[in-house]
Amino acid sequence: MKVTTLAGGIGAGKFLRGLVRAIPPEDVTVIVNTGDDITMHGLHVSPDVDSVTYWLGDVFDRERGWGRRDETFRATEELRAFDPDMAWFNLGDLDLATHLFRSNLLARGATLAEATARVAARFGVAARLLPMSDERIETRLSVAADGDELDLHFQEYWVRRAARDEVKSIRYEGADRSRPAPGVLDAIAGAEAIVLCPSNPVASIGPILAVPGIRDALAARRPDVVGISGIVGGAPLAGMADKLMPVAGVEVTAAGAAACYEGLLGAWVIDEVDAALAARVDATGVRCGVTDTIMVDDATAEALARFALSLVGPGSR
Amino acid sequence: MKVTTLAGGIGAGKFLRGLVRAIPPEDVTVIVNTGDDITMHGLHVSPDVDSVTYWLGDVFDRERGWGRRDETFRATEELRAFDPDMAWFNLGDLDLATHLFRSNLLARGATLAEATARVAARFGVAARLLPMSDERIETRLSVAADGDELDLHFQEYWVRRAARDEVKSIRYEGADRSRPAPGVLDAIAGAEAIVLCPSNPVASIGPILAVPGIRDALAARRPDVVGISGIVGGAPLAGMADKLMPVAGVEVTAAGAAACYEGLLGAWVIDEVDAALAARVDATGVRCGVTDTIMVDDATAEALARFALSLVGPGSR
Repeated sequence: MKVTTLAGGIGAGKFLRGLVRAIPPEDVTVIVNTGDDITMHGLHVSPDVDSVTYWLGDVFDRERGWGRRDETFRATEELRAFDPDMAWFNLGDLDLATHLFRSNLLARGATLAEATARVAARFGVAARLLPMSDERIETRLSVAADGDELDLHFQEYWVRRAARDEVKSIRYEGADRSRPAPGVLDAIAGAEAIVLCPSNPVASIGPILAVPGIRDALAARRPDVVGISGIVGGAPLAGMADKLMPVAGVEVTAAGAAACYEGLLGAWVIDEVDAALAARVDATGVRCGVTDTIMVDDATAEALARFALSLVGPGSR
Repeated sequence: MKVTTLAGGIGAGKFLRGLVRAIPPEDVTVIVNTGDDITMHGLHVSPDVDSVTYWLGDVFDRERGWGRRDETFRATEELRAFDPDMAWFNLGDLDLATHLFRSNLLARGATLAEATARVAARFGVAARLLPMSDERIETRLSVAADGDELDLHFQEYWVRRAARDEVKSIRYEGADRSRPAPGVLDAIAGAEAIVLCPSNPVASIGPILAVPGIRDALAARRPDVVGISGIVGGAPLAGMADKLMPVAGVEVTAAGAAACYEGLLGAWVIDEVDAALAARVDATGVRCGVTDTIMVDDATAEALARFALSLVGPGSR
């Protein structure tokens, strides 16, 4: 069973660990958000691509919740001695190698897709990882901060300023003139099931859907598209979706998250604590599945993946 | 006494440690070779600027002979796991912070001179460090390698290929259309003495002299210019000058090194082991001083600096 997924960072990483236990990893394609990619001190950093890679490569630091295990921060600590304001994005020493490698390849003319595949190969990731686009797309936020209106890169909002600013609007700069990376549309068209990972619908999946062609490709596969809510009990399991979803005009509930994907979903998975919302989702013509969505380990992630796949694809109707 | 120096890497670093003991560091200006600057994985690396900075900032690793003390190489070792061919330039984790900082400043529009000053300030360097130019100049070598002719960046020749190739020619790409960094010409015109450090005349001082205006500025100050031979007993104390000087058509002796600076020198310092060459240097109209030039510590470097300064400037004639 060929499965294509749309993925952001941590929620996606956890889920994909389970998915590659449910089906052979070689049958999995992951289309990853690159809207929060950022050029940091001359290096190309791809936070979501790296999260997914580190999760699937089993080098992710689950305890810290980001970056690599057994990481050190000598370079960043030293950079902080140069200029505290410059060291807000904690680049680990091992993690730096990823960025050096990627930046080197890009400088030599490789595409982001090629660099992504090379990084994944180094960590033995058997699933196919594709950036949503080879082109630069930036998720940017207009925020109110101390009476001023600031225009921030997503990472500046989220990491540098710890999501403390009131968000006025969000946009995916460059998306309208971008193209999907090679293989992205085919991976959607050719999969037996398409899974929207339990990622932030606005900051993670939103940028992917903003790349021309991807939304239409998904809509054409609607019966085979299943999404998993990253909103449980009216709050995100991780991240800041609760601050961004209202800006997008949707409520911060498992039903509101489904509304972000209007016209794209054949099925939607919500947590047992949100069971009361199932009827609302069903009423929109989306088959709503209810299960335990809290992925405390790879086994529970695998169960969730199997459940999600059971709602779409050949055997489900 | 205001002193301006022209500097390469290690020999210059050692000498400058002594010079700032002989006169107040605030009175020292160092014009540093940037011909072997290189963009490495997206980062701007300035090997000679960093050497001089680390020496003067007292963080240089004297034992290893390059880089910083108490250094680790986690990022580079990890990069080697990605691609052994990519990790040929050993970037230490602490050293990386310097390159991240510099690259960040340059990306934000700072000049190389501004970035150089900021890096020096972080290490408490009281001497003024100036890159020879804000513009990109690359020392490149044409070499014969396994029957092929390769065009190499200086660092590729020296570090990556360990100077194993036969050098056919050397050039300072971009120098002819470059300008000296702000302050360089004034520092030469306004100094009471100008010192050419015991650096490689072809690979370190040569690029500086290739920046239009610098050679003329020195020639105009000839009586006050003193150089120190980095060639002792017919071989360089460090580096690969013995391989590059023949390409420039000069013999690998303390006299040959002086010949590289024809028309620029008021005085020239050679080691006691080369005393027999003094008459040859004197015969070219350059006052030749003979002393112990082996800088085993800061005290011997200071003695060498005092000796060199005694040959030029107000008190010497």
